Amino acid sequence: MIAVLKPDATREQIDNLTAWFEKRGLNVQLSVGEISTVIGLIGDTSQIDVDLLEGLDIIESVKRITEPYKSANRKFHPDDTIVDIGGIKIGGGHFQLIAGPCSVESKDQIIGIAQSVKKSGATLLRGGAFKPRTSPYDFQGLKAEGIEFLLEAKELTGMPIVTEIMNTNHLPMFEQVDVIQVGARNMQNFEMLRELGKTDKPVLLKRGLANTITELLMSAEYIMAGGNKNVILCERGVRTFETQTRNTLDLSAVPILRELTHLPIVIDPSHATGIARVVKPMAMAAAAAGADGIMIEVHNDPVNALCDGAQSLTPEQFEDVAGMVRKIREVITA
Amino acid sequence: MIAVLKPDATREQIDNLTAWFEKRGLNVQLSVGEISTVIGLIGDTSQIDVDLLEGLDIIESVKRITEPYKSANRKFHPDDTIVDIGGIKIGGGHFQLIAGPCSVESKDQIIGIAQSVKKSGATLLRGGAFKPRTSPYDFQGLKAEGIEFLLEAKELTGMPIVTEIMNTNHLPMFEQVDVIQVGARNMQNFEMLRELGKTDKPVLLKRGLANTITELLMSAEYIMAGGNKNVILCERGVRTFETQTRNTLDLSAVPILRELTHLPIVIDPSHATGIARVVKPMAMAAAAAGADGIMIEVHNDPVNALCDGAQSLTPEQFEDVAGMVRKIREVITA
Amino acid sequence: MIAVLKPDATREQIDNLTAWFEKRGLNVQLSVGEISTVIGLIGDTSQIDVDLLEGLDIIESVKRITEPYKSANRKFHPDDTIVDIGGIKIGGGHFQLIAGPCSVESKDQIIGIAQSVKKSGATLLRGGAFKPRTSPYDFQGLKAEGIEFLLEAKELTGMPIVTEIMNTNHLPMFEQVDVIQVGARNMQNFEMLRELGKTDKPVLLKRGLANTITELLMSAEYIMAGGNKNVILCERGVRTFETQTRNTLDLSAVPILRELTHLPIVIDPSHATGIARVVKPMAMAAAAAGADGIMIEVHNDPVNALCDGAQSLTPEQFEDVAGMVRKIREVITA
Amino acid sequence: MIAVLKPDATREQIDNLTAWFEKRGLNVQLSVGEISTVIGLIGDTSQIDVDLLEGLDIIESVKRITEPYKSANRKFHPDDTIVDIGGIKIGGGHFQLIAGPCSVESKDQIIGIAQSVKKSGATLLRGGAFKPRTSPYDFQGLKAEGIEFLLEAKELTGMPIVTEIMNTNHLPMFEQVDVIQVGARNMQNFEMLRELGKTDKPVLLKRGLANTITELLMSAEYIMAGGNKNVILCERGVRTFETQTRNTLDLSAVPILRELTHLPIVIDPSHATGIARVVKPMAMAAAAAGADGIMIEVHNDPVNALCDGAQSLTPEQFEDVAGMVRKIREVITA
Repeated sequence: MIAVLKPDATREQIDNLTAWFEKRGLNVQLSVGEISTVIGLIGDTSQIDVDLLEGLDIIESVKRITEPYKSANRKFHPDDTIVDIGGIKIGGGHFQLIAGPCSVESKDQIIGIAQSVKKSGATLLRGGAFKPRTSPYDFQGLKAEGIEFLLEAKELTGMPIVTEIMNTNHLPMFEQVDVIQVGARNMQNFEMLRELGKTDKPVLLKRGLANTITELLMSAEYIMAGGNKNVILCERGVRTFETQTRNTLDLSAVPILRELTHLPIVIDPSHATGIARVVKPMAMAAAAAGADGIMIEVHNDPVNALCDGAQSLTPEQFEDVAGMVRKIREVITA
Repeated sequence: MIAVLKPDATREQIDNLTAWFEKRGLNVQLSVGEISTVIGLIGDTSQIDVDLLEGLDIIESVKRITEPYKSANRKFHPDDTIVDIGGIKIGGGHFQLIAGPCSVESKDQIIGIAQSVKKSGATLLRGGAFKPRTSPYDFQGLKAEGIEFLLEAKELTGMPIVTEIMNTNHLPMFEQVDVIQVGARNMQNFEMLRELGKTDKPVLLKRGLANTITELLMSAEYIMAGGNKNVILCERGVRTFETQTRNTLDLSAVPILRELTHLPIVIDPSHATGIARVVKPMAMAAAAAGADGIMIEVHNDPVNALCDGAQSLTPEQFEDVAGMVRKIREVITA
Repeated sequence: MIAVLKPDATREQIDNLTAWFEKRGLNVQLSVGEISTVIGLIGDTSQIDVDLLEGLDIIESVKRITEPYKSANRKFHPDDTIVDIGGIKIGGGHFQLIAGPCSVESKDQIIGIAQSVKKSGATLLRGGAFKPRTSPYDFQGLKAEGIEFLLEAKELTGMPIVTEIMNTNHLPMFEQVDVIQVGARNMQNFEMLRELGKTDKPVLLKRGLANTITELLMSAEYIMAGGNKNVILCERGVRTFETQTRNTLDLSAVPILRELTHLPIVIDPSHATGIARVVKPMAMAAAAAGADGIMIEVHNDPVNALCDGAQSLTPEQFEDVAGMVRKIREVITA
Repeated sequence: MIAVLKPDATREQIDNLTAWFEKRGLNVQLSVGEISTVIGLIGDTSQIDVDLLEGLDIIESVKRITEPYKSANRKFHPDDTIVDIGGIKIGGGHFQLIAGPCSVESKDQIIGIAQSVKKSGATLLRGGAFKPRTSPYDFQGLKAEGIEFLLEAKELTGMPIVTEIMNTNHLPMFEQVDVIQVGARNMQNFEMLRELGKTDKPVLLKRGLANTITELLMSAEYIMAGGNKNVILCERGVRTFETQTRNTLDLSAVPILRELTHLPIVIDPSHATGIARVVKPMAMAAAAAGADGIMIEVHNDPVNALCDGAQSLTPEQFEDVAGMVRKIREVITA
């Protein structure tokens, strides 16, 4: 970490600051230049808060030169993490297609969709049992019953299941769930992350709507710091000024995350765009960009169901997308 | 709610859609125009998801004409809500200054600051016991002990206290806390909002970093839908591209919220800007804009403490700010 | 266009408003509902300013149901526009690779790069002669001399050239330029757009850093309204909070623009990301998303040249990217 | 400027880079640390492009420690700039109220408004003759005739006038205009800035909708680098995700700009919010935040005129606002 001091910093202020850093076990290198004095800090600076330092009167600016995340950092873990989900591997060259409805609506619905997407090539089944809704008056999901239906679909099809948690008090219900999803709005629910760090379940961590890649990795770090190394990152669109799509899918996150971290990277084009007919080109683009997995909403009857028609594909459309994604994968793995 | 249909919507599709709306108890008014067909929906449309409707193939666009929040809506509750915090009133013309340190660090610290800010005119004491931190390695607050110290400061000074909750499992510890703060990152932690709706404690709800005013009101609605009407809204800066300040304080939220809701509105210039020397002009501007309260970080020794030096005022600086805020209040209430 | 009136709008106000609309040649359909009165406007509403209407006291909200652009609108021009650039076609299934250095630095440099990228499959040559720079002290390009060098490269290689204009007073210098580029910062320089509308040169119009797709189309409309129909749209990244990449490439703009307009769509992954090693996956993703063209910065010696090393590929890297893009194109056109 | 090198930078690469910097007249201080090598650059680094440096393979990150603007920088010009506008001074403690209609519509209109706002305390008259409009089909202003009407209003009332330029080819028409306004969309029209730098007219430079404070100052620098020191900065709202207001007024720009630059700072609450009834609290807040001037839209008949009713005050409302602003000014200058 490097701190640039203001030109008018006094000797006494600099000494106080140096002492304060040293008390925290850091090695301080002072370099007095013509235009400004620069303090270099060597040691574990992950405990130092940049914002707070920058607020000090004598400090002009602060720059981290090592990332504040360690467990998630490729520098310290050069090999790709491969997460094993009930025998299905993701990361390190293993690519998976995750598909299923936005919400679990009934036993028949989820079983029907599971069988259909499996046939088209999906390897993991998604479906919401607990639904985060902006309005308290909106449908909040089938909850415990939804998880039961997912488990029945899993038993019938053999597909491991992915579903979202909204309260860690519900963890007992998730015992047989294969991947616990943390939604975008809970990406910085630090208490939740900490609790999930105590389990050994794979966690699919979605990037918040206005969060940076570094913040996503810091949230992964919360889970990993607790001992759970099975974290899968998921980009699902960020907020921009564009209104034609619900959010803006940030596909450059794939190559950037690939450099910064060893964790698998999944793309969710359905939530990112909110428009079924944009899902196909974006799924293909995600595959071309090198994602380790793509998560797509599929509904057996999107138009009549309405509840998630907007961004869901029909099983037929999903089959088409899955086929094209496979062809793109062939190109990039050739 | 108004839905504009695409020009190529078929009669059958329109009939299906109409039937679907009617099944949900809505009165449907169809108006077939030269360029497009418009569907007007009358009744309780708060259960209808705009995003989902907009995703349907036959729909061009959807527009709510009534807000999806009811309890928080000034249209249905024209009179200002006045929240009573242990005898201290906020809203409906009652203005309060909330002050205290970012984190509770020790008993002496919080008592010292409490006595000092009270003398300068603060009426509520703030202080963090549980601290949301981006990094799992950062100081996470004194937790239960921090709350005890706040309660001692309350007993000594008579000032009601405001402190943040991060997990509703901690609610028993907050029994004697006067105002429970929901941090910006938890604004859409719907499970937390729902739990707080079951209490009768005043809740200070902070706007998320990239959330709109409507989303803030929807989150207030979550709390109020549970029966707790004591919600205080807090604007604390939104994310923009500006990097000179930590966030950008959106002061126009004050007059806008004043129109849309009856709830009290507090401004937090310390977190919004992250820079102590910007707090004074922004606190004065907040008062001029008509805020019901201003929340300011004060630390007895910001420079040496470092832990929140960046945005904290010294007690002397706070006294100056409090005096100027009072003078601005005199102008606007004259 | 639909305007929803406030519940307290008086009869007289509504009559005044109706008269005002009718004076502008619009057919007004009034629909008085239980909760609100809705005004439907039929006719050419492109002259009506939504912002201004929304500011009126009696108006709750306004919604366009027809886009304010006509010439650029696919609804009125269902067939793809194919722009002919000196015999090289783009749009309507014709895909082109545009390559070249950020800045023209010397005759040798631009000729060398042109020959190299042509061999790798580029069909159009780009190079900056006039450079928009944030700082007045930065290198501003070779200007007229830069254009001469580009023309020499064109003569030698037969590649049509694309270069940016910063002042329409320079138009005489652009007489032999094949495609005039309008930079992101000039996307809403309406005087420039209007002047370019009077020429018949193909214009490559870059989306502004914080502009929406609709605003991009409105700027295209400025050019087309003047009579010049040869507009090529270019997505080059939008501003988001992410700092790992210079901007965030919005690839969903490709399928969205494909629906809204008949104009060709080019993606510029070099400027969008600002990082050479991210250009390859993003170029492949752009091809997978269905772009009509990809524009890539190539420099013969990026590391030593420094002036545009950050985002430029070497000729060898470009050859690799061009090959992969070709393979992706084969998949999507199969 | 400080550049942090990647851990795997080779000796040869470092030597090449050092040589490259030295060739540009910079003094290079190399500091080899345990975790990384840091290069400190002393000298005129304003010519070095941070983005480009950051793109080099061996560079981890770059940080400026001196701002890239000089003429606009308070460090080099500690005293406030006071711009003299036909005898009316702004900056350095001189506060001015600028008022007038969005567009000049007729001679009577502009004269009537001028006389009215002068009586209420406005000291400068604004009015648009050339109007930047998103749509080519919208009203584009009275142009030359609009300027003539403004000049007549100036002659009658003695108020200096402020009006926007959209094309520097129009400069001859602006000869008697007192302040030339550069609109938000032209903030980075560098050719325009450069031309205005050759005049000696006061320039009111509006911040772009998604531009940072540093970018605003860089644009001011363009004008000043040409020799014109009479630059007035204007904050008029930035784009955020909030939709209740047209843009979000960034009032913290006032204290931040006060530190960074010596130039006067004007706030435009009318364009920032787009809502007449929000203008009053925001004008008061701007005064409380310490602005040197406030620019407000006033129209004699906003409701019927429609063309700018949304954000314009009536003369009566303006008188009220002007009175409140005066009272706030009394508090802060006491």
